[in-house]
Amino acid sequence: MKKLVGNLLYGQSGGPTSVINASAYGVIKESLENQNIIKDVLMMKHGIQGALNEDFIFISKQDEEDIELLKHSPGAAFGSVRYKMADFNEDDTDYVRLLYIFQEYNIRYFLYNGGNDSMDTCDRISEYMKNVGYEVRVIGVPKTIDNDLPFTDHTPGYGSAAKYIINTIMEISCDMLAYPKGKVTIVEIMGRHAGWLTAAAAVATKNGFGPDLIYLPEVPFSIEKFKKDVEKVYNKKSQCLVAVSEGLSNSEGVFLASSSALKDAFGHFQLGGVSSKLSQIVNNEMRISSRNIELGTTQRSAAHLQSLTDVNEAILVGKAAVKFAIEGKSGIMVTIERESSSPYKVSYKKQPLYKIANKEKAIPKSMINQDGNFVTDEFIDYVMPLIQGENIPKYYDGVQHFSKMKNGIIKK
Amino acid sequence: MKKLVGNLLYGQSGGPTSVINASAYGVIKESLENQNIIKDVLMMKHGIQGALNEDFIFISKQDEEDIELLKHSPGAAFGSVRYKMADFNEDDTDYVRLLYIFQEYNIRYFLYNGGNDSMDTCDRISEYMKNVGYEVRVIGVPKTIDNDLPFTDHTPGYGSAAKYIINTIMEISCDMLAYPKGKVTIVEIMGRHAGWLTAAAAVATKNGFGPDLIYLPEVPFSIEKFKKDVEKVYNKKSQCLVAVSEGLSNSEGVFLASSSALKDAFGHFQLGGVSSKLSQIVNNEMRISSRNIELGTTQRSAAHLQSLTDVNEAILVGKAAVKFAIEGKSGIMVTIERESSSPYKVSYKKQPLYKIANKEKAIPKSMINQDGNFVTDEFIDYVMPLIQGENIPKYYDGVQHFSKMKNGIIKK
Repeated sequence: MKKLVGNLLYGQSGGPTSVINASAYGVIKESLENQNIIKDVLMMKHGIQGALNEDFIFISKQDEEDIELLKHSPGAAFGSVRYKMADFNEDDTDYVRLLYIFQEYNIRYFLYNGGNDSMDTCDRISEYMKNVGYEVRVIGVPKTIDNDLPFTDHTPGYGSAAKYIINTIMEISCDMLAYPKGKVTIVEIMGRHAGWLTAAAAVATKNGFGPDLIYLPEVPFSIEKFKKDVEKVYNKKSQCLVAVSEGLSNSEGVFLASSSALKDAFGHFQLGGVSSKLSQIVNNEMRISSRNIELGTTQRSAAHLQSLTDVNEAILVGKAAVKFAIEGKSGIMVTIERESSSPYKVSYKKQPLYKIANKEKAIPKSMINQDGNFVTDEFIDYVMPLIQGENIPKYYDGVQHFSKMKNGIIKK
Repeated sequence: MKKLVGNLLYGQSGGPTSVINASAYGVIKESLENQNIIKDVLMMKHGIQGALNEDFIFISKQDEEDIELLKHSPGAAFGSVRYKMADFNEDDTDYVRLLYIFQEYNIRYFLYNGGNDSMDTCDRISEYMKNVGYEVRVIGVPKTIDNDLPFTDHTPGYGSAAKYIINTIMEISCDMLAYPKGKVTIVEIMGRHAGWLTAAAAVATKNGFGPDLIYLPEVPFSIEKFKKDVEKVYNKKSQCLVAVSEGLSNSEGVFLASSSALKDAFGHFQLGGVSSKLSQIVNNEMRISSRNIELGTTQRSAAHLQSLTDVNEAILVGKAAVKFAIEGKSGIMVTIERESSSPYKVSYKKQPLYKIANKEKAIPKSMINQDGNFVTDEFIDYVMPLIQGENIPKYYDGVQHFSKMKNGIIKK
């Protein structure tokens, strides 16, 4: 293996998770342990946009406390972005610029932390640099609360979001059960094409306070079937708690709720409003009082209720990325392989970026019940190890503290 | 003081808080310490409705573990209700029934845990029993996340809801700041006529991740003023985080968002939708991307992020209610008097129920800034002691456990 000495450039991309900064922590720690190879660690301010604009945050300029707090800080401490790189065969402007920056700052390690879209960016950069003969090791660091990346047992960020959803929905359930004649409460959970997060709500049910019905994007949604399901539960219990994915669609694949006016940079529709729509149907067509709750961005940012397992894995994924890069690997994303569920044991492997870019992993059929309105025990067995342990923050005067990177943007 | 031997009847009423069950715990513990006077503790199932229907939960039949878990259980472990008692001069049906039940079960202590509306119920029952000469000591136990009861420095439930809102809005802020060009994010917080909860969001701002603007029901809301305020912040920061009370109304007192179709048993409009309405204004009229987040019922049920100060006070308020009753007091509600803020010290006092029933305490002018879009340091000094300490739950396999009262309803 050739020893490649130079600087490491790390960036965050796409929707934040509550542990993406823990992966940054892993990258930083592993880099600092290999200072004979990695001379300096630069963070892109707002992902690839920061790289193109020469907006960097230098780790060597930060306080130790802010680095340690990364394990407890939600959002994207270095800034995230949704930016789609063009095909370099059609327009290589950004790539030429990036090559200049890589040369200027002696970037030999490029680590990009994101989901499917970000792995596409990563893959394109890797290919371009190979084509022009610039030696740089490009590694994808996975993250997404959606848990929809292929070739990895799960993704960092999922376990914490799942834990937050489970515990929050138990609390919502308690609140609903307080009244003698309850409402039909519909909770909307993130997940565009994959229902992993919504499915997690079933753990709340296993613990006595959870949804009666769960609807996932993997199952074509029928409003008539939904009304029948709700009626059945309500007639029996005088209450009904429903968990729905934001990405529910009918048998033709048309989203139940979407605003065609709002598309993100990758052409995805911004979803939201499924629970409100269903709640109106229950109120108006079924004449049962209904309320809806959208859990919103707290799902991906609830640092105060992280899964310790998830935090530790996020750190180890970041470290593995640096290790693979030093070993000479490139054009790959780190994956998590589950060796066993009980006792829970994983190892860190890799897959080529092109296999992962822009692909989505849905919940397998065996994890969804026959009726298409709940999950099976196979799913419960899958998810339980991922929510174990708490990463309780230190509260100062009742309030959490988060990392604040010094000086923000440092231009060369 | 005459020693009045008999049974104690306790009920929960109105919207749950995350610590109302801690008050129940206080009532139970203090009663058990006075078994020479209080022979048995009966809990109404769903408040006054349970009393009228003879649906009781007997504490003597419960497991110790479920009693202890009350300190960590959200919702209303014994069931809540919204039920308006008639004026007994006009219709005494419910009162005659209640008198029969009191006699039948030898109820000599009647403790009712709720907000303004519940104190009205409590007051009416107290007056009726006095009129008919039935000896029973009637005590109101305060609770409401809204913090709007008069004659008490604050109410149990408020500190925990405030703590949850502060920490959650910090996380939402981090998530918003992740992107280079942020949105205008509008967070909707509970509070019909009083903005105490919304105001608490300012603590997040003091900690570096909070709203730029705060709008309270105490200040007549002007959409034009709001647009100017948002524009000013957005032009400077390219982002804007706004916290709004659900109960915003214009200078004529007309709610910004309300559905006239939905009124509760006390004739209050069910609110909600303010943030959605404002978000549409920002999107359509200001042409700035905006998203809205309604924190929903998690605000009042987030047991996993309780203020330890609040939990302990809720217990002590419950104990004080029993102590006052044993001392011979009746027709009163327990109040919390702040003796000093630094060091924080309170004592438990009392006020006649009629003074409290149906009244609401707004935020004083001195706690709101001149511009009417934020709070002053006086408010911060007021709220800080109330969010101190964490009542971290014990997680079992990553999940909280809540009280489950045995057998539910036990009919005589």
